[in-house]
Amino acid sequence: MENQSSNLLEQYVFGVDIGGTTVKIGLLDMDGHKVEVWEIPTRTEDEGKNVLPDIAEAIRKKMEERGIKDSQVVGVGAGAPGPFGDDGTIFKAVNLGWSEFNMKNELHDLVKIPVKCGNDANVAALGEYWMGGGQGYKDMLMVTLGTGVGGGIIHKGKIFNGANGAAGEIGHIHINDEETLVCGCGKKGCLEQYASATGANLLMSRVLEASDEECVLRGKDYTCRDIFDAAKKGDKLANEALAQYGEYLGKGLAMIASTVNPEIIVFGGGVSKAGDILFDLVRPSFEKYVFPGAKRTKFALAKLGNDAGIFGAAKLVLDAVAEK
Amino acid sequence: MENQSSNLLEQYVFGVDIGGTTVKIGLLDMDGHKVEVWEIPTRTEDEGKNVLPDIAEAIRKKMEERGIKDSQVVGVGAGAPGPFGDDGTIFKAVNLGWSEFNMKNELHDLVKIPVKCGNDANVAALGEYWMGGGQGYKDMLMVTLGTGVGGGIIHKGKIFNGANGAAGEIGHIHINDEETLVCGCGKKGCLEQYASATGANLLMSRVLEASDEECVLRGKDYTCRDIFDAAKKGDKLANEALAQYGEYLGKGLAMIASTVNPEIIVFGGGVSKAGDILFDLVRPSFEKYVFPGAKRTKFALAKLGNDAGIFGAAKLVLDAVAEK
Repeated sequence: MENQSSNLLEQYVFGVDIGGTTVKIGLLDMDGHKVEVWEIPTRTEDEGKNVLPDIAEAIRKKMEERGIKDSQVVGVGAGAPGPFGDDGTIFKAVNLGWSEFNMKNELHDLVKIPVKCGNDANVAALGEYWMGGGQGYKDMLMVTLGTGVGGGIIHKGKIFNGANGAAGEIGHIHINDEETLVCGCGKKGCLEQYASATGANLLMSRVLEASDEECVLRGKDYTCRDIFDAAKKGDKLANEALAQYGEYLGKGLAMIASTVNPEIIVFGGGVSKAGDILFDLVRPSFEKYVFPGAKRTKFALAKLGNDAGIFGAAKLVLDAVAEK
Repeated sequence: MENQSSNLLEQYVFGVDIGGTTVKIGLLDMDGHKVEVWEIPTRTEDEGKNVLPDIAEAIRKKMEERGIKDSQVVGVGAGAPGPFGDDGTIFKAVNLGWSEFNMKNELHDLVKIPVKCGNDANVAALGEYWMGGGQGYKDMLMVTLGTGVGGGIIHKGKIFNGANGAAGEIGHIHINDEETLVCGCGKKGCLEQYASATGANLLMSRVLEASDEECVLRGKDYTCRDIFDAAKKGDKLANEALAQYGEYLGKGLAMIASTVNPEIIVFGGGVSKAGDILFDLVRPSFEKYVFPGAKRTKFALAKLGNDAGIFGAAKLVLDAVAEK
């Protein structure tokens, strides 16, 4: 009798997105509607040993507050910034102070609810596939253009993880033999050096340096957004820098599309706020370099913003439930 | 009663590898042992309309000859040189004279036995995964170094096909901005232009042209094999050409490994007959360009030679049976 009545109660799923500064937690219903989303600070001190206990406590408190029973929660999904093995082991998460351990098992021991976890970029891609820019497609590449360049590959509706969680690390594809600056990864000429927000600034500064022409950004402390704004207003050098930006990004995406042949590429991260102009910048170079069979690849903007991670984390759990 | 007795009889699977000149057909038992392998000519005239009927006839004749009943054959797997959709549609096969049609349905109508089919390079990769150089690994990249450069990606033991069958078409990844010659695909600077057997010859001819030094190949009509032989004997210029060969191939494979993060890369095709020396040539460049998380990727040689296609085609069927 008790079982039957609890089955009649609403079911929920938690989606958790662990960042270096804050942890975002979402309580969602089974259709993916947000019931509540809130944040807690990420306590990275002491090798980040408080991060998972804090999350477990926040979830248990929320359940108590709302009178949600354990039997009503199908699971907790979580994305974290590091490479994952298929068994839930995270190999490293520099931003959280973590070294290798099985995050899935440890969070489960704390929260006493089934747990699924994965790399944050891959999980965000899954979110966009489920509820955002990739909705309706099965093979998707997400590229995140922010401080760095990240990516996630969705294949037949699932995260493509690779052998040790490094699949989709597209920011470090080599695209320029001539580069002299060293990338954060130690190599030279990585996609991230040009296609990140920082990369756009680098290209702008090089264009300014190589020219004497007028530019509204000359001598100013500009952001990536300023470059796009200046270009939209017709600034010649800003447009030149962005043409280079599009050339590099299109070339990198062409290599990736030639390898994994997605139906659609979803552009996310801060730079994607520039909007459709991004596609005009990228498309010529993409078509120049891509394998003819992958030329039809569609482009779309991400739709979920910072919520992509909690949606994708929740979807990890829902997929696992559906497979049972 | 009849059903029961036929269940006791040996079960078989056919694996078919359709090439531009010959069709190779293998009769295998359920453990993947070859019972018989034979070839028939590929009749490409009249837009290749005889190719599938010839295959169906050859299979039915073999069954009759050996007294094999329909109930003893779990299916026919077939690989063909073109991109495939998930439903068995082949979009084009220039070498066979084919335009788009559903090959799976058409071969099934002819042979009256369940059919599975896929792109020949992907199917060969599945064969090497199952019975060859990739045995024991779940995430594998196969690169075929022959007249052209082909590839196949195996993810969790299955072919990674992409949105319209173009995944793994790694021969046309762009790796050289300086190239002036046009590749067969219409672009310039594709991996295939350097890493194919023809590509090795091109690199050798350029090294010879740029130098006045002695070389045993100078003035001769050399093959790719001759270059490797000369290099093994210490010829300076041949070694120089092969160093370039390794640099290009390593760079291309690094980009692919940064995207799909395989456990192992299996080298097949004519050039791979050079053996382990290939790894010595490729490894330095691979490690220079690859994302650090994918540096541990293993290298191995293909083991099945021209039989990879029939093994992979048979495996397509066995996987489908296992999933039921």
